[in-house]
Amino acid sequence: MPVNFTPATPEQLLPVAGVALGIAEAGIKKADRKDLLVIKLEQGARVAGVFTKNRFCAAPVTVCQEHLAAGNEIRALVVNTGNANAGTGEDGLARTHKTCAELSALLGCEAGQVLPFSTGVIMEPLPVDRIVAGLPRCVADLRPDNWHSAAQAIMTTDIVHKALSKRVDIGGATVTITGIAKGSGMIHPNMATMLGYVATDAKVSQPLVEAAVRYAADRSFNRITVDGDTSTNDSFMLIATGRAAMAEITNPNSAEYEAFRAAVTEVAATLAQAIVRDGEGATKFITVEVNGGADGEECAKVAYAIARSPLVKTAFFASDPNLGRIQAAIGYAGIEDLDVARVKLYLGDVLVSENGGRAASYREEDGQRVMKEAEITVRVELNRGQASTTVWTCDFSYDYVRINADYRS
Amino acid sequence: MPVNFTPATPEQLLPVAGVALGIAEAGIKKADRKDLLVIKLEQGARVAGVFTKNRFCAAPVTVCQEHLAAGNEIRALVVNTGNANAGTGEDGLARTHKTCAELSALLGCEAGQVLPFSTGVIMEPLPVDRIVAGLPRCVADLRPDNWHSAAQAIMTTDIVHKALSKRVDIGGATVTITGIAKGSGMIHPNMATMLGYVATDAKVSQPLVEAAVRYAADRSFNRITVDGDTSTNDSFMLIATGRAAMAEITNPNSAEYEAFRAAVTEVAATLAQAIVRDGEGATKFITVEVNGGADGEECAKVAYAIARSPLVKTAFFASDPNLGRIQAAIGYAGIEDLDVARVKLYLGDVLVSENGGRAASYREEDGQRVMKEAEITVRVELNRGQASTTVWTCDFSYDYVRINADYRS
Repeated sequence: MPVNFTPATPEQLLPVAGVALGIAEAGIKKADRKDLLVIKLEQGARVAGVFTKNRFCAAPVTVCQEHLAAGNEIRALVVNTGNANAGTGEDGLARTHKTCAELSALLGCEAGQVLPFSTGVIMEPLPVDRIVAGLPRCVADLRPDNWHSAAQAIMTTDIVHKALSKRVDIGGATVTITGIAKGSGMIHPNMATMLGYVATDAKVSQPLVEAAVRYAADRSFNRITVDGDTSTNDSFMLIATGRAAMAEITNPNSAEYEAFRAAVTEVAATLAQAIVRDGEGATKFITVEVNGGADGEECAKVAYAIARSPLVKTAFFASDPNLGRIQAAIGYAGIEDLDVARVKLYLGDVLVSENGGRAASYREEDGQRVMKEAEITVRVELNRGQASTTVWTCDFSYDYVRINADYRS
Repeated sequence: MPVNFTPATPEQLLPVAGVALGIAEAGIKKADRKDLLVIKLEQGARVAGVFTKNRFCAAPVTVCQEHLAAGNEIRALVVNTGNANAGTGEDGLARTHKTCAELSALLGCEAGQVLPFSTGVIMEPLPVDRIVAGLPRCVADLRPDNWHSAAQAIMTTDIVHKALSKRVDIGGATVTITGIAKGSGMIHPNMATMLGYVATDAKVSQPLVEAAVRYAADRSFNRITVDGDTSTNDSFMLIATGRAAMAEITNPNSAEYEAFRAAVTEVAATLAQAIVRDGEGATKFITVEVNGGADGEECAKVAYAIARSPLVKTAFFASDPNLGRIQAAIGYAGIEDLDVARVKLYLGDVLVSENGGRAASYREEDGQRVMKEAEITVRVELNRGQASTTVWTCDFSYDYVRINADYRS
């Protein structure tokens, strides 16, 4: 079960003015499950996204980027689970275009105003006929209060759905933010088989929606790893419908923009952490905090070396304070001139190593106490600069192997 | 059990003139097991090595590098298992120096002529008193035909010992090469908790012994990965005693040097592959061959992305031709300008993808047939240059988790 995570109820998810959602059971891979989602936007919404950097990116990722780059006003998003439409070449692109064309005909807009997303098995042909057959049912189901079903419809190996709403006061107006996300394996920046959609009624200029989505991604979905595998389909979208009763935010240095960006980031970070909490086989939620680096990049190198190490992650699974494995990961992270004598390593509140070796004050029972908890913070003080980075990961269990050895069968 | 690997018998391991080996049960971590090895060299031997690049390298690695850098004539090597003496700071260095001093007193040489090695748990104090107590027993046991016991004495989580002898004709003389190695977890370049010792009676100049050890390492121990963790203690040593009846090899462009280098590389590669065959929890031996890269570095990036991916490795464990996972790993390997439409992917002799998607000729049963074998070759043709790289890895099984969750307890 997910680590310390209770999925939201339908009542906890707030509608966002200007957004309606419709779900269908299209039988894409399995019968009797929600696997197709349409998100319809009223005119005037602003949309921006960040996408996987995988060179084998999926067909829908390519098409999304084309439609956004063309500056089209986006009127709908369509998401299918059960098939990633990745590693499918020209044929995959044609099937994605067909999905967009069919949905745009149903909604009375252009195909270029639709953003497509897919998640699931890679390298299998997208069953586009089943998707096309399901779209009218999605459209018939469109409702503003459908976020709970939407979160369920995008799940793959997720055990629970991930969704969250938040209300904030920005410049005197009450703004609603609701987000959903999916993902539990192939999770590694830049992002994962991870889809995230955050919508708000805030009124924000297009450049600032774009800036905010990148800012939030770098502090949320780009800071998690389950298995180090960067997926072909990762996408994180921010939608601002502009329906709130407020002046448009256009100044990147304004208090309003900062408040907006902070609220979106908080929602994105909570969703990203939920993905790790529901990581395949996860029994522990681990925060790796690296401070005192010369720059953010070297902090991230150290944090990911720890967070990716199968040896570190199996030690967490075993609740074994095998500190040497963490130390070894710091050592091979790739900081050529690292002075290990200056590095301090903490497990929770316990100083475990300094001066290149075990701390004199360290007692095994203190380490064991921290390791037994379901939430563990590893903190590394590099003592060579002012930069910091935090990443989130989970442990590595028998169930990770079971889930991934069985996924297709 | 190791994949297709039968450990050598005592009779298969040939003595190397000028080398004697002595073993003891020193009780370093467990009772009743060989855990201490002394390799004594006659005067005139040439020794060179390559070591881990981990910044938290172990005390013995630091001391080895000091003793070699000083240009001392090496007269003995000492290896303990059960404790890595890594992450132990100044105290660890002092304990290593004490080991060298005690052995040199027993052998009548200088402490600086001894090379120390340790493998085992990180960040625990080296039980130097037990080592010192065991050294006289090692010295009493010194024999040229002790390679089999030596290979057993350096094991940690290894299921089988790794050892190999080879005779080659170089410039009319018969040269003997015998090597031993250990390692099965924390295996990743640049190298791993991996120790390798190859000795030969060939007569080779010091610069060429140094060149040959680097050449061989780059084609053997630096081309394997079990779990992507680079250890603190990795060391690969080449000893050339010069006892064979031959003229000294001094010319790097001579046929004799090429023959010598090739023979040493073959022994090292067989030992390195044995480490993977005995990788923690391994049920399959996987060769990842990347051709057609612009340079060796980008070939290695792709090969390691595949060889490290937990998703790819669990699919091998499941005998599941989940080709999308391999394709995704190629895509995130870090070649920014990779044209995926030019990439061809083969599983064994089966073309599985081209033109950015599944090959038209591919049938799932062909992929399944290859995946069921115990030895599998993944071949990637990048079609962007002339460079090639091969790495070896194993699959990722329940037993990997079991072994690494239980290792200390």
